[in-house]
Amino acid sequence: MLSVNEAIDTLLENCKRLVDSEDISLMEATGRTLAADLIAAIDVPPADNSAMDGYAIRWSDWTDTETAIPLSQRITAGSVPAELASGSAARIFTGAAVPGGADTVVMQEHCSENDKAVKILKLPPEGANIRRRGQDISSGQTVLNVGHRLRCQDLGLAASLGMAEVPVFRRLRVAVMSTGDELREPGEPIAPGQIYNSNRYTMKSQLATWGFEIIDMGVARDDPEIVREMMLKAAEQADVIITSGGVSVGEEDHVKAVVEDLGAINLWRIAVKPGKPFAFGQVQGTPFIGLPGNPVSVFVTLLVIARPYLFACQGITDTSVHAVRHTARFNKKVSHREDYLRVRSDQAGVELFTNQSSGVLFSTSWGDGLVRQGVGAEIQAGSLVDFLPYAVFN
Amino acid sequence: MLSVNEAIDTLLENCKRLVDSEDISLMEATGRTLAADLIAAIDVPPADNSAMDGYAIRWSDWTDTETAIPLSQRITAGSVPAELASGSAARIFTGAAVPGGADTVVMQEHCSENDKAVKILKLPPEGANIRRRGQDISSGQTVLNVGHRLRCQDLGLAASLGMAEVPVFRRLRVAVMSTGDELREPGEPIAPGQIYNSNRYTMKSQLATWGFEIIDMGVARDDPEIVREMMLKAAEQADVIITSGGVSVGEEDHVKAVVEDLGAINLWRIAVKPGKPFAFGQVQGTPFIGLPGNPVSVFVTLLVIARPYLFACQGITDTSVHAVRHTARFNKKVSHREDYLRVRSDQAGVELFTNQSSGVLFSTSWGDGLVRQGVGAEIQAGSLVDFLPYAVFN
Repeated sequence: MLSVNEAIDTLLENCKRLVDSEDISLMEATGRTLAADLIAAIDVPPADNSAMDGYAIRWSDWTDTETAIPLSQRITAGSVPAELASGSAARIFTGAAVPGGADTVVMQEHCSENDKAVKILKLPPEGANIRRRGQDISSGQTVLNVGHRLRCQDLGLAASLGMAEVPVFRRLRVAVMSTGDELREPGEPIAPGQIYNSNRYTMKSQLATWGFEIIDMGVARDDPEIVREMMLKAAEQADVIITSGGVSVGEEDHVKAVVEDLGAINLWRIAVKPGKPFAFGQVQGTPFIGLPGNPVSVFVTLLVIARPYLFACQGITDTSVHAVRHTARFNKKVSHREDYLRVRSDQAGVELFTNQSSGVLFSTSWGDGLVRQGVGAEIQAGSLVDFLPYAVFN
Repeated sequence: MLSVNEAIDTLLENCKRLVDSEDISLMEATGRTLAADLIAAIDVPPADNSAMDGYAIRWSDWTDTETAIPLSQRITAGSVPAELASGSAARIFTGAAVPGGADTVVMQEHCSENDKAVKILKLPPEGANIRRRGQDISSGQTVLNVGHRLRCQDLGLAASLGMAEVPVFRRLRVAVMSTGDELREPGEPIAPGQIYNSNRYTMKSQLATWGFEIIDMGVARDDPEIVREMMLKAAEQADVIITSGGVSVGEEDHVKAVVEDLGAINLWRIAVKPGKPFAFGQVQGTPFIGLPGNPVSVFVTLLVIARPYLFACQGITDTSVHAVRHTARFNKKVSHREDYLRVRSDQAGVELFTNQSSGVLFSTSWGDGLVRQGVGAEIQAGSLVDFLPYAVFN
């Protein structure tokens, strides 16, 4: 069986990155992925401006603390200053453009204004308190790279550069399908032998959180013909197909057989717990990810194995997540697969949910992250472990 | 000046938690906040079911590995089993309901089926391989508490309990306003002395990411009458008003004066860097948060100080974020305010952006989080510091 890292690498090697892009309004761009480098077309700040409320002067005009310099203008933020008259000072406010001819701003706390003139009680060094044009960003500078997933502050940055639109890849289209005769939708009555379909909700919510366009194929009954038809339809419309269930070894597990018939399974079974029966392949050329059927397996393999691949397909450059080191407050025997334990953290450490069965979705809601237990590693209370808060996957 | 923690506590003490709730479709509930405890109305699993593909038997019927037990039925997931005929076995698949009369499932790898009968080569303990009704969740159990912000896996959990709708608080209504004559919108031409409005984008993107309903008031010019009118309008419509700029000491900073006139400023200036001129008060009874004008100050105080308050107003119980310990790869002198440094992390440690000026928004886009430097603390390369990845604030 492939290790988790080998599986992720295999998926990434098989990834077809999106190329279609579109220009969208900056305000709509949170979570979208840049389709081109973002290059500054202006200097930031666009002009020399005052870092303080105070007085702008020509530094060499100052003689002593007793001589009042006449005020020739008042410059508020957003107003356009005149050239500074020789031998005069300008009242100036934070962010306001420094007038031509002035080279220094004196903070108001060091000045005394009286009768339209100002005495400068403490002269700062020449050039003080001016934010220079282009000191933060200069025109032509690349500020964000193609493949960057835009965060809130990045929208602010693009706005500061005057960009009303940004080029992003179109949203990745992901077809979502669950399989199983036993599945009923929430709100429906349930008969003996049936259960509610939770995987559809976990998958759709997570994929939407990642910003993908979801094509909801619904539930396929355990009938190879139905699975086949749905799979062909999904392959036509989607960039990637994701299913849950039907990829185990049982004779009622049809998904794997159908995919093998319509395309290929390139990878099956990973040394991961939960989630061993994970499958990857293609249906008529459209990439296929077959998640296991157990709800915790779906959630964990979606985060750990499918996510880097889906992010790469979307065009995102950095698909990694970083674990942090935290103190285990539990013991755990050696695992022979890479084990993703459902835990709850606080400042002191991480606590283990008592039931780590892959059927118990409650274990994921109870806590706030996963501990990654390497193959062959034992965990002892008090030792440091790799902790992955759920938040880092979003 | 108040410390950061004192400021957060003051805001939280003044918080009016939302009470209005609504029932919404489960599929729309990601990021929303539970307005009531989520209580299971069914057992999970709802019936005893098989943990394996195999054969269901009555354990005491088994005699030896040579005696074939006749197969009386075939039970797939989702089908309704008949009572197990005495002395017979049932072919059964993972997730299928265990028939009455059976008490044990034997995994198929330990069986040999031939001619509609099965030999059991290795008998497991009585009761093996059955997931018991209610073993994960029992009817009446509280699975998530009021005030919990729903994540992807929580939607899965609610679905597994058959809930098509969930009770959530309505979205918090936040009025957003920037102030300043110098501000132009991206896409507009820029004149000398003007800059592009980035705060509006940072604020709206972040507030939307948190799931709030945004009332965009636009930009108020530096005129007390205009600020006053806009403030009254915002107070009428919103649960909370957030502004950027206009809360410093300058004579062109009108926001603070207008709020003092229309309501009150309860808190002004915090020992934080960047973000000192932060203000909190009320306008005609509607809570008011005055963020500073510098773009980094806006971003940092929004995350660190406004977020816990806004989350509490929304009805969210856990408003805390946990820093992780990470290795500094820089030196930093003692700070006399709590300093939130813009950094970039990798597995080895955190690196400091060279320009920590509150005007340089690029510092936040360059990196992936903040290092919190406590008052009076010095940071030396190689030491452990408190790191807050941006992701934990979302």
